Amino acid sequence: MNPQRTAHLGFARLDVDRAARTGTPEVVYAAGKTPEQTVACLAGLLGSGTGLAWATRVDAPTAAAIRDRWPDAVVDGEARCAFVGDLPPATGRVLVLTAGTSDGPVAAEVAATLAASGVGCRRVDDVGVAGVHRVLAVAPDIADADAVVVVAGMDGALPSVVAGLTDRLVVAVPTSVGYGAAFEGLAALLTMLTACAPGVLVVNIDNGFGAGVAAARIVRAAQR
Amino acid sequence: MNPQRTAHLGFARLDVDRAARTGTPEVVYAAGKTPEQTVACLAGLLGSGTGLAWATRVDAPTAAAIRDRWPDAVVDGEARCAFVGDLPPATGRVLVLTAGTSDGPVAAEVAATLAASGVGCRRVDDVGVAGVHRVLAVAPDIADADAVVVVAGMDGALPSVVAGLTDRLVVAVPTSVGYGAAFEGLAALLTMLTACAPGVLVVNIDNGFGAGVAAARIVRAAQR
Amino acid sequence: MNPQRTAHLGFARLDVDRAARTGTPEVVYAAGKTPEQTVACLAGLLGSGTGLAWATRVDAPTAAAIRDRWPDAVVDGEARCAFVGDLPPATGRVLVLTAGTSDGPVAAEVAATLAASGVGCRRVDDVGVAGVHRVLAVAPDIADADAVVVVAGMDGALPSVVAGLTDRLVVAVPTSVGYGAAFEGLAALLTMLTACAPGVLVVNIDNGFGAGVAAARIVRAAQR
Amino acid sequence: MNPQRTAHLGFARLDVDRAARTGTPEVVYAAGKTPEQTVACLAGLLGSGTGLAWATRVDAPTAAAIRDRWPDAVVDGEARCAFVGDLPPATGRVLVLTAGTSDGPVAAEVAATLAASGVGCRRVDDVGVAGVHRVLAVAPDIADADAVVVVAGMDGALPSVVAGLTDRLVVAVPTSVGYGAAFEGLAALLTMLTACAPGVLVVNIDNGFGAGVAAARIVRAAQR
Amino acid sequence: MNPQRTAHLGFARLDVDRAARTGTPEVVYAAGKTPEQTVACLAGLLGSGTGLAWATRVDAPTAAAIRDRWPDAVVDGEARCAFVGDLPPATGRVLVLTAGTSDGPVAAEVAATLAASGVGCRRVDDVGVAGVHRVLAVAPDIADADAVVVVAGMDGALPSVVAGLTDRLVVAVPTSVGYGAAFEGLAALLTMLTACAPGVLVVNIDNGFGAGVAAARIVRAAQR
Amino acid sequence: MNPQRTAHLGFARLDVDRAARTGTPEVVYAAGKTPEQTVACLAGLLGSGTGLAWATRVDAPTAAAIRDRWPDAVVDGEARCAFVGDLPPATGRVLVLTAGTSDGPVAAEVAATLAASGVGCRRVDDVGVAGVHRVLAVAPDIADADAVVVVAGMDGALPSVVAGLTDRLVVAVPTSVGYGAAFEGLAALLTMLTACAPGVLVVNIDNGFGAGVAAARIVRAAQR
Amino acid sequence: MNPQRTAHLGFARLDVDRAARTGTPEVVYAAGKTPEQTVACLAGLLGSGTGLAWATRVDAPTAAAIRDRWPDAVVDGEARCAFVGDLPPATGRVLVLTAGTSDGPVAAEVAATLAASGVGCRRVDDVGVAGVHRVLAVAPDIADADAVVVVAGMDGALPSVVAGLTDRLVVAVPTSVGYGAAFEGLAALLTMLTACAPGVLVVNIDNGFGAGVAAARIVRAAQR
Amino acid sequence: MNPQRTAHLGFARLDVDRAARTGTPEVVYAAGKTPEQTVACLAGLLGSGTGLAWATRVDAPTAAAIRDRWPDAVVDGEARCAFVGDLPPATGRVLVLTAGTSDGPVAAEVAATLAASGVGCRRVDDVGVAGVHRVLAVAPDIADADAVVVVAGMDGALPSVVAGLTDRLVVAVPTSVGYGAAFEGLAALLTMLTACAPGVLVVNIDNGFGAGVAAARIVRAAQR
Repeated sequence: MNPQRTAHLGFARLDVDRAARTGTPEVVYAAGKTPEQTVACLAGLLGSGTGLAWATRVDAPTAAAIRDRWPDAVVDGEARCAFVGDLPPATGRVLVLTAGTSDGPVAAEVAATLAASGVGCRRVDDVGVAGVHRVLAVAPDIADADAVVVVAGMDGALPSVVAGLTDRLVVAVPTSVGYGAAFEGLAALLTMLTACAPGVLVVNIDNGFGAGVAAARIVRAAQR
Repeated sequence: MNPQRTAHLGFARLDVDRAARTGTPEVVYAAGKTPEQTVACLAGLLGSGTGLAWATRVDAPTAAAIRDRWPDAVVDGEARCAFVGDLPPATGRVLVLTAGTSDGPVAAEVAATLAASGVGCRRVDDVGVAGVHRVLAVAPDIADADAVVVVAGMDGALPSVVAGLTDRLVVAVPTSVGYGAAFEGLAALLTMLTACAPGVLVVNIDNGFGAGVAAARIVRAAQR
Repeated sequence: MNPQRTAHLGFARLDVDRAARTGTPEVVYAAGKTPEQTVACLAGLLGSGTGLAWATRVDAPTAAAIRDRWPDAVVDGEARCAFVGDLPPATGRVLVLTAGTSDGPVAAEVAATLAASGVGCRRVDDVGVAGVHRVLAVAPDIADADAVVVVAGMDGALPSVVAGLTDRLVVAVPTSVGYGAAFEGLAALLTMLTACAPGVLVVNIDNGFGAGVAAARIVRAAQR
Repeated sequence: MNPQRTAHLGFARLDVDRAARTGTPEVVYAAGKTPEQTVACLAGLLGSGTGLAWATRVDAPTAAAIRDRWPDAVVDGEARCAFVGDLPPATGRVLVLTAGTSDGPVAAEVAATLAASGVGCRRVDDVGVAGVHRVLAVAPDIADADAVVVVAGMDGALPSVVAGLTDRLVVAVPTSVGYGAAFEGLAALLTMLTACAPGVLVVNIDNGFGAGVAAARIVRAAQR
Repeated sequence: MNPQRTAHLGFARLDVDRAARTGTPEVVYAAGKTPEQTVACLAGLLGSGTGLAWATRVDAPTAAAIRDRWPDAVVDGEARCAFVGDLPPATGRVLVLTAGTSDGPVAAEVAATLAASGVGCRRVDDVGVAGVHRVLAVAPDIADADAVVVVAGMDGALPSVVAGLTDRLVVAVPTSVGYGAAFEGLAALLTMLTACAPGVLVVNIDNGFGAGVAAARIVRAAQR
Repeated sequence: MNPQRTAHLGFARLDVDRAARTGTPEVVYAAGKTPEQTVACLAGLLGSGTGLAWATRVDAPTAAAIRDRWPDAVVDGEARCAFVGDLPPATGRVLVLTAGTSDGPVAAEVAATLAASGVGCRRVDDVGVAGVHRVLAVAPDIADADAVVVVAGMDGALPSVVAGLTDRLVVAVPTSVGYGAAFEGLAALLTMLTACAPGVLVVNIDNGFGAGVAAARIVRAAQR
Repeated sequence: MNPQRTAHLGFARLDVDRAARTGTPEVVYAAGKTPEQTVACLAGLLGSGTGLAWATRVDAPTAAAIRDRWPDAVVDGEARCAFVGDLPPATGRVLVLTAGTSDGPVAAEVAATLAASGVGCRRVDDVGVAGVHRVLAVAPDIADADAVVVVAGMDGALPSVVAGLTDRLVVAVPTSVGYGAAFEGLAALLTMLTACAPGVLVVNIDNGFGAGVAAARIVRAAQR
Repeated sequence: MNPQRTAHLGFARLDVDRAARTGTPEVVYAAGKTPEQTVACLAGLLGSGTGLAWATRVDAPTAAAIRDRWPDAVVDGEARCAFVGDLPPATGRVLVLTAGTSDGPVAAEVAATLAASGVGCRRVDDVGVAGVHRVLAVAPDIADADAVVVVAGMDGALPSVVAGLTDRLVVAVPTSVGYGAAFEGLAALLTMLTACAPGVLVVNIDNGFGAGVAAARIVRAAQR
C-alpha cells in the first residue's frame, strides 16, 4: 500500500506521507485552529522531514505566531497563506484569471498554492464578461498555458466563455463576492456547474487552495 | 380612477378594462383551467368588446376546444398560445435571442406575445456563449432593436455578455432547460439576477409572456 | 465592433469605453475593495476622459478617502454613493416608490443612479399595500412618469398592485428589509418574479444601482 | 382529562372523541390510503357514534368505493371531499376569496370544510390584486363576515391588501398555482408569512381543510 | 370606502386611520429606522389624534430617544416594545405558552401587543413536549382562554400537541431559537405549517407582534 | 484486518463478508437496478454462502423475477422487500410506532429488516400527537422494548414526545407523507433533528431499512 | 404514568423527574439564557435533589457566574459545559472519533456528556478519510467499544467508512466546520443521512450533547 | 482569433469549428430536441466536415430516427449516446470508478465520451466506501491511470477517499441515485465540493459527458 506514516500531536494526527502518496503535503487549514495549534502542526510537519510546511486561512494573530516562531516565514497577506521553508523552483504555466477586483484574494490563494507546489503562474485580473473584449484579449495567454484557473463571483459567467475558446482544462472557482441573489457564492457555483461549454471543472466556493492543487496536478500530468 | 369594469362568469371575474389601464388586455392563463373554462373566458373577453382575445399555456385539448368554437382561431403550437380575432399591425423592433435550441418554445411565447401586442420581432436562435463569436455576430441586430429579450437555460450567462455590448435594455428570461444543478431554471435565474453588467431585468423562469409584455411596453415608451 | 479600450491598473482593468458602448460608464463597486483601490479606480476613470466618475456601496472610510483626494466630491450618505465631477442635466421622469421607510437607502441608490445618468426622478416613500389607498393616491404621479421603480421588502407585494394600474414598465427592486421568512429579501424577490400582473421586471435584492441604470435606459429609449 | 377513547382498526387507531375535545372530528386524509382503508376508517367513525363521517383528498377510485358502500354519500368533486351522513345546519358567515380561477379547488375544500362544520360561507372568486378595484369591490362582503379566508397562488399578495382593509382575521392559504419561481407554492407561502399588514395567519400550501377548520373555530368563538 | 387619511412626514406616510379600518393602529417597526425616525413617527401618530402610539423592535438607543422625548413612555425591555400614552383596559383572555425559556422575548412581544390592544393575557412558560405532562397540566388554562398563542423554537412541536387538546384556535409562532438544522426558525416554521392537528394558524418566525394582533382580533370577534 | 472478500459480477462487486464485519449482510437495493441485475446479485450472495439473501425497494416486475427464480422466496408487498432463504429466529424486542396510517409502508420495511436480522418486533400504528393520549397509552410497550423506532411524516413531532417518556433510544424515521410545506419529508426530518428531547437519532427520509439495521445493532449490543 | 414533578421558577418550569423517566436529567441549555437564568436553573435542579446539575453552551460570562455561585463547579472550556456536583463513576466504553482538529469542541461536548452520564470514553482525533489508513488504524479501538460516535464537518464522509468496518452502532455528528458549499454543516448532515453503509444514525449539526446522551443509552441498553 | 465558422439550420446555429478551438466538437444534447432536430443537427455537423458526429441524452425515438437515417450509427443504450462516423483510435488511460451499480449509466456516458474523444478507458464498478477494502484494491489501477473519474450518488464519499490515495487528478461526478435527503444528487454534489482531500474537481449532477471531456483534456495535456 501507499506510504502512510502518521505523526501524533494529541489534538492532531499528521498524515506525513501525504506528499509521497498524492504529490501535495498535508497543508494546515488554520481556520478553526488556535494560533498555537497551527504552529504545532507546522512544527510537526517540519519535524517529519518535509522541507516546506504551509498553512492557509491564516489570520493576523496566527501570522504573528508563525513569524514569532520562524522569523524567516513568508506570509502572503492577500492570500492569507504562510510558508515555512523553501519554495520549490517553478515549472509549467498556469493562467489565473479573475472576473473582478474583489475576487483578488481567492486568486492570490491559487497563486500561492501553485508557488508552493512548484508550478509557474501568470495572473490577469478583472476580465469580466461585461466587457467581453477583455476576455478575448487574453486568448494568447490562454493558448500559452498548461491549464487555466478562472475565479469569479456574482454571475460566475466567465468560465463558460473561456472554456469555449480553448482546449485547456478550465478549473472554475466561484467566490462569495456579491450580494442578494448571489447567496454567498451559490449563484456563481450553480452557473459554473451548469456551464454550457464542456471542459469546466468546479471547486468549492472561495477554494483557491483546491484549485491550485488541481492545476498543479494537471501540470504534473503534462510532465509525466 | 382608471377604468375598471368587471365581467362576472361565476368562476371568473374578467378585468375587461385592463387594456385601457395597462396597455395589455387580461390574457387567459390556460394552465389549471379546464378547456371549457378557457373557452368561456375567451368568449367573455370577446363579448366585452375586445377585438383580440388570447390564451397562453394552451395544451392540445384546450387548443381543440378553441378551434372547435372559433374555427378561425390561430394556435401557435411552439408557443402554446391561441388567438381569437385579428392581430394588430406591428411597429417597433424587438430582438429575441436564445442561447440554445431547447429554449425555443419560450422564445416563441415571447414572439407570440409581441405579435399580439402589435410589436415587431426578430428572432435569432442558438447564440450561446460557448461560441462567443456567435454573440458578437449579432451586434448589428442588437443595435437595430428598441429592446433585446434574451432567453437562456443552463448557466444563463448570455444576458451578461449581451448587456455589456449595448445601451438597449435587456430583458432576461431564464428557462428550465438543463438538469442537475440547473435546478429547473434556478441556476439561470440567479445568474441573471447577479449579472455583472447593469441593464439586465429579469422575469420568472419560462415566462415568455411576461418578457413579451415588458418589451412591448419599452417599445411603446419609445413611441410616446 | 464596439469601442473597447481598457485601462490597466494592475489589480484592475478599467473598461473605459463602456459608456460609449452601453450608455453607462463602468461604475466602481466599492464593496470588497480597499479605500485605496476605489480611489485608484476613480482616478483611472477620470484619467481616461470621463467627466464623471462614480462609486457605489461606499462605506465611511472609503468616503473619507474620496473626499481627501477630491474635496469637491459629492457623497450621498443615504445612498452610499460618491461622485467625482459634474452631474449631467436631467431629462425625463422616473417615479421611485417605496413600500416602507426602511426601504429608503435602496431608493436613494436608485435616485442617485438616475441623477448620475442625467434622468429626472420623483420619489414617494412609504406607500405599502397595507394601506392600499396610499397606492391609489399616487396614480397621477405614475401616469406622469416614463417608468416606475418600486422598492419593497417583506412581502414585496407593491409591484403587483402598481403594475395593474398603469401601462408604464415597472422595475421592481426587492430589499432585504424584514426578518424570519423574509429570508434576507428572498420572499420579496419571489413575490416580484411571480407577480400576477405582467409588466414587472426584477433586479437583484437591494440592487438600486441596477434598477436606476435600467430605468435610465427606458427613458433614453423614449427619447431616441 | 379530555375525552379520549380510541377505536382500533388494526392499521389505524381512530381518535373518536376528537370532536368532543376539539370541535372537529377526526377526518380521514385519503391521500396515501387505499380505497378500502378509507372506507374502513369512515365506517369506524360512523360506528363510534358520529353522525357525519368525512374524508378529504378523495380521488376517483376512493370516491367510487365510498359511493358503493354508502349510496347516499355526497362527493364534492371540485373539493375532492366525501361526506357520509347529514351536514349540520349552518350558522355564522365566512367569506372565501380567491385570487384566480385556478385557486378554485382549494377554495372548494375550504367551503366544504365549513359546510361540514356547520358554518355559513360565501365565496367570491378571481379578485387578484392585478385589478385591485376587484378587491375594493368586495369590501362590503368583508365587513359582513365573521372571518375571511384568502386563497392565492403565484405572488400570494392578496391577503396583504385584504388585511389592510378590515378588522376581521384573515386566514391565508397559499396554493401551488404558478410555475418557475412560484416553487410549488413556496413564493406565496413566504409572501403571506411576511405580509406587511398584521392580522394575517397562514396555513400549509393547498391546505383548504385546515383553513376551514380554523375559520370555523373563529366563528364558534364569536358564538360562545 | 374605509377611512384612509395619511400623515406625510417626508420619509414616511402614516396611515393614521388604520385603527378605524382594521382595529389596530399603524405601529412603528423600529428596526431599520434611526431613533430620530422612530420618534418622528410616534409623534406623528400622536399628533393625528391616537391616544396611544407604539413601536416594536426597539433597541437601546431608540428606547433612550423615546424616553428622552416622552419621559412617561413605557419601555418593555424583554419585549423590545415602547408605548407612549395610556394602555386601554383589558378584556378577554388569551393564553400564551412557550416551549422553552429562550422563547421568552417573543412571548413578551405577544403579551405587550395584547396589552396595547386591550386584551387580557396569561403567560405560562417552558411547557415543551419533552415533558408532555407539563402540557397536559395547562389544560385548564387552555379551556379558560378565548384563544391560545404557542411560541416555540427548535422542533416547534408544541402547537401540534396543544391543538389536539382543545377547540380554541391555536396561533403558532415559530422562533429562531436553536442551532444547526433549526436553520434560524425554519424547522419550527415547517413543523407548525404541517401540524397533524387542524386548528393551527402560523405567523412569521419571531413575529410576536403579528400573533398578538391576530389573537386580539379573535377575542374581539368573540365580543362582537 | 476485517474479512473482506469480494464477488465480482461484472456490473457489481459483492461485499460478501459484510455480515462478518458489520453484522448485516450486503442487501440488494433494487431501485435503479433491472430485475435481472437484482436476481443476479441475490444469486451471487447466495452462492457466496450466505443462508439468506435479501432485497429492498422491490417493485412488481422485480418481485416477479425473484419468484420466478426462487418459487419459495418471500415477498412482503407492503414493505417492498424480498427474501430468499430462511429467516433467523427472533430475539429481543423493538417497538415500531407510526404517527399515521400512511406511514405504514416505511414501518413495514423496518419490521421486515428486523425479521431478517433475527430481532423481534411489535408494531403499533397511528398514534400521532394530535391525540396525545394515544401516545401515553403505549408507555407500557415502550418500557418493554429494547429500543423504539418512530416513523412519522408531516410535522414529525412524535419522536420528541416519545423520547421524553423513556430511557430507551429512539430511532426516528421521517417519511415523505404530507404535502406543501412538508417538502417530501424535509419538514419531518428537520423536526426530528431538532427534537427538544435528547435520545433521538435520525435516519434518512423513508429509510426503514436503515432504522431496522440500527435497531438490530442496539438489541445485539444489549445481548453482547 | 412516569414520574413527572415540575419545579416552577417563574421564567422556567423544571422537569425534575426527567432523569427518573429517561435516564438523563434536564440539562440547562445556556444559549439564549442570561447568566442569572442559567444559575437559577442549576440551583433549581440541585434543590430538587439531583446530585449533579449541568449546563451546555456556556459562554464566558455564564461560566464566571456559575463559578461565582459554586466555587467547586467544573467548567470544561473546550466543551463549553459546566458541572455542579459529583460526576458518577464511569462504566462501558464509547469511542469518539473526529475527522479533523477543528471538530474538537464538538467531540469535547460528546465526551463531557458521557462523563456526566457515567459512561467511559476514549477519544481519537483527526482520522479523516483523506488519509484512510488513519481510519483503518483505529479498527481495534472500534472493536473494543460499545458504540462509536463520529464527529465530522466538511464532506462528512467518515461515518460511511467507519460503519462499513464494524457491527457497532455509529452515531454521526455533523459539524459546522468548513466554508462555502459546506453551508454551515448542511453538506456533512446530508452526507451522513445518505451514508451508503447502514448502521449510521444522525443528530443535529454540532449537537455533541445529543450524541453523548444517545451513546450513553446504548451503553446502558448493553448493561440492562 | 480562434476559428469560428457557424452553420445555420434555422432553429440552430452549429459551432462547426469548436473542435478546432477546444479539442471537442459541438455535441448534440438531444434532451429537449425533437428526433428530427437531433438528426438535422447531426447531419449539419457531418456536412461541415467533421468525421464523427455525436449526440447525448438520446431516448428511444431519437435513437430510432438516427438509425433510420444512418444504418451504421452506433447507439450505446446504457450511455444513451449515438455516434455517426468512425471513432478515433484510443490513446492514454482514464480509470472510471463507480460507487454502486445504479451509477452505471452515468459511468457509461463517461466511457462513451472518452471513446469518442480518442482516449482509452478502464471501468471498475461498485467500489463504494461501505466496503473500503474494495477501494484499496483498485490502487494499482489508479496508479496506472492518467486521470481518475469517480461516479457516485447517495453520500458521494468515494472521491474523498480516492483523492487521498493518489497524485492523479480526480474528476468527481455526483449522480441522482438515492432518495430522501439525497435530494436528487444535491447531497453527493455538496460532499464532493467539500471533499477533505484536495485534488477533487466536480461537474454537474449526472454529467458524464462533461467529466469525459475534462478527463480527455487532462490526457491530452499529458501528451502535449
